Amino acid sequence: MKKFKDINNSNKNQFGAEILCIGSEILLGNIINTNSQWIAEQLASLGIPHFRQTVIGDNPARLKEAILEASNRSEILITTGGLGPTPDDITTQVIADTFNTPLEQRNDILIDLKNKLRNKDRNLSQSQKKQSLVPRGSKIINNSSGTAPGIIFSPKKNFTILTFPGVPSELKEMWNNEAKKWLISNNFSNKIISSKVLHFAGISESLLADKITHLLKSNNPTVATYASTEEVKVRITAKGANLEETNKMIIPIEKELTQITGLKCFGVDNITLEELVLRLLLKRKETIAVAESCTGGGIGSKLTKIPGSSKIFHGGVIAYNNSIKQRILGVPEELINTYGAVSKPVVESMAEGVQKKFKVNWAISVSGIAGPTGGSELKPVGLVNFCIKGPKTLIAWEERFGSNKTREDIQKLSVLNALDRLRLSIIMDK
Amino acid sequence: MKKFKDINNSNKNQFGAEILCIGSEILLGNIINTNSQWIAEQLASLGIPHFRQTVIGDNPARLKEAILEASNRSEILITTGGLGPTPDDITTQVIADTFNTPLEQRNDILIDLKNKLRNKDRNLSQSQKKQSLVPRGSKIINNSSGTAPGIIFSPKKNFTILTFPGVPSELKEMWNNEAKKWLISNNFSNKIISSKVLHFAGISESLLADKITHLLKSNNPTVATYASTEEVKVRITAKGANLEETNKMIIPIEKELTQITGLKCFGVDNITLEELVLRLLLKRKETIAVAESCTGGGIGSKLTKIPGSSKIFHGGVIAYNNSIKQRILGVPEELINTYGAVSKPVVESMAEGVQKKFKVNWAISVSGIAGPTGGSELKPVGLVNFCIKGPKTLIAWEERFGSNKTREDIQKLSVLNALDRLRLSIIMDK
Repeated sequence: MKKFKDINNSNKNQFGAEILCIGSEILLGNIINTNSQWIAEQLASLGIPHFRQTVIGDNPARLKEAILEASNRSEILITTGGLGPTPDDITTQVIADTFNTPLEQRNDILIDLKNKLRNKDRNLSQSQKKQSLVPRGSKIINNSSGTAPGIIFSPKKNFTILTFPGVPSELKEMWNNEAKKWLISNNFSNKIISSKVLHFAGISESLLADKITHLLKSNNPTVATYASTEEVKVRITAKGANLEETNKMIIPIEKELTQITGLKCFGVDNITLEELVLRLLLKRKETIAVAESCTGGGIGSKLTKIPGSSKIFHGGVIAYNNSIKQRILGVPEELINTYGAVSKPVVESMAEGVQKKFKVNWAISVSGIAGPTGGSELKPVGLVNFCIKGPKTLIAWEERFGSNKTREDIQKLSVLNALDRLRLSIIMDK
Repeated sequence: MKKFKDINNSNKNQFGAEILCIGSEILLGNIINTNSQWIAEQLASLGIPHFRQTVIGDNPARLKEAILEASNRSEILITTGGLGPTPDDITTQVIADTFNTPLEQRNDILIDLKNKLRNKDRNLSQSQKKQSLVPRGSKIINNSSGTAPGIIFSPKKNFTILTFPGVPSELKEMWNNEAKKWLISNNFSNKIISSKVLHFAGISESLLADKITHLLKSNNPTVATYASTEEVKVRITAKGANLEETNKMIIPIEKELTQITGLKCFGVDNITLEELVLRLLLKRKETIAVAESCTGGGIGSKLTKIPGSSKIFHGGVIAYNNSIKQRILGVPEELINTYGAVSKPVVESMAEGVQKKFKVNWAISVSGIAGPTGGSELKPVGLVNFCIKGPKTLIAWEERFGSNKTREDIQKLSVLNALDRLRLSIIMDK
């Protein structure tokens, strides 16, 4: 196997692959650069190290500069964009210029272009013909769904450029059909990188990081935490000769992690909280309904995203207006008048009401102040009350997510909090 | 106004702004880098030239290299990511190292951190405290929803770094609240680029593009279409000396566009379909409730995302299970047995039931087959029935979104379709 030179062992800083996406529309923010992410995933799965991504507009001087830099830093440069027929498609020309290589017209591409455009134009225009020009010595990456082919071009020792169009479907097809095989057969695919993701709820990223500091320092596998409003994740990534080897490295770390974090870790890889809750209930052959005020249907919406949820999730009441809490869920008016709609007694009555009305084993209710208005000193924006009622469970609690949070975040956090406590309640309900 | 040096007029190639996103998770292809696109849009709207985007992993040596390069090429470097509490959050430390500037603990950040974490931890951990260290001479960009603040730091003449967290909501808030003002008041905002976004529903991107081909060729303002599962948008972008000038260019194009497309265009700039529907109802002092089967609370959840929706949206029933359609909404059992749960008579009965029970002016109901299973030849996956009942309105219709669509897409499309028809129904209800 070819070994990529490592940055630490080389004066020339030459190593791995880089991705260079070309297109002014990316710099203007008109489109999201999904190509980088897709190629990055492919490189990771081939075990090809990849340390930098760059975006450059349709400008020859700046593009040349970026290509030259990459040629001094990496062994593989993968470009997307700028292969089309219009004047702002400059990639092939600039690559040739950068390495003082002449462009040659390739007849095989010309014939292929004529075939492809048969129904559109009998004669190729100058701009269409442009796509048949490639730097001398290039290998072609065929493009079966579009017109612009890519090239594999090695302008100097230990440096190869692979070009692809910017259209994601064409890029993917060309990668899968030809480029991948080329990378493997030229021994660029080095080691296997495989990873496992652990999902956490009810713990902040920093608290989790503090508990596993020693693991975060590990080198192979590496352990890293990620956080979004949605959840906290830990990714264990191992590099090895094969899947067996990487698994052997990942498993003990995973075991240690789950031992440290206990029930805070709710699952691995692609599982979501809502899927887990439904699985737990399915196992117990139990049903559930929701009574949602400030989340407005958010919990129901999450649960119904899971195929097959109809067996377990029967539905619910969106009791946004207080009169609905009374009339549909049977919450006594005096309860609302005495304690307020955002209170333990009211969420308890909501959960009880929906459990009875919907004839389900489990009920979950939410009532809170999502803001931006409606808060008071005693009951600020971000205060949310919850109740879960199950066969042997009755818990009501409140959360204060903080009045600095946006309405959307408070709603999201409420849904997640409800689902996480539901998960724990089902596990404990025995 | 400050003039950015242009690449063509400068030996040092020093010009404009660059974006540097930091995070190994981007290089591994685990997440799509949406931050670059968002910042690119912001820079364009401020008229700040921007010629390069880079992504680097959580590696000090490579990050330092990238920062140094940018400092020799650009006047503004905007970074995202790596500001958190964990060991792989290295951005601030590396910036300080790169320019040999000591880190200082800032008491104002410490106090702010303590306030934010009050309910969770009384004492700050070492990793939490890390977030209060900034290079000497930095200005702080406050982060009101997260813990990690950003910095504005000028390590040398004509070069300033602005750092932001990788969490998109925090980045956006910090940009809008502080960074934007700083860029404007420090004269980085050069020529005005202003744009207007028109939102469309009930029309595909290609159909729309065909209707406005002549406008898509315009140079200044430029006109471009964008599509997602959510909606179709048209952006009109004009470049000029000031807002008055750009407005003068945009208005006639906008007028022509709306004349061509009529009611398909539902609003401009940041408006959403759900906000528009609520506005229309508020104007009429009318109320609404939902009866959702396959969307599981998705319509309610969208409506309650809008602040102040409680005045208009009273709630609804998530009637996911057929027994709920009968018991709670009063849909006759024989209707379900004769026509099936996904049928016009059933959605009509659902809308009627919720309108009556919730005592509202408007009701909207949805029942469909979101898949992946449950479809038949006659009623395939993707078939969804809808009904809208208003003061003078009663319409029921079906959509066939296609059985090749994912469950999530069918649910999303159903919510959008319902809201769009509701919009048109309210406008027509007179």
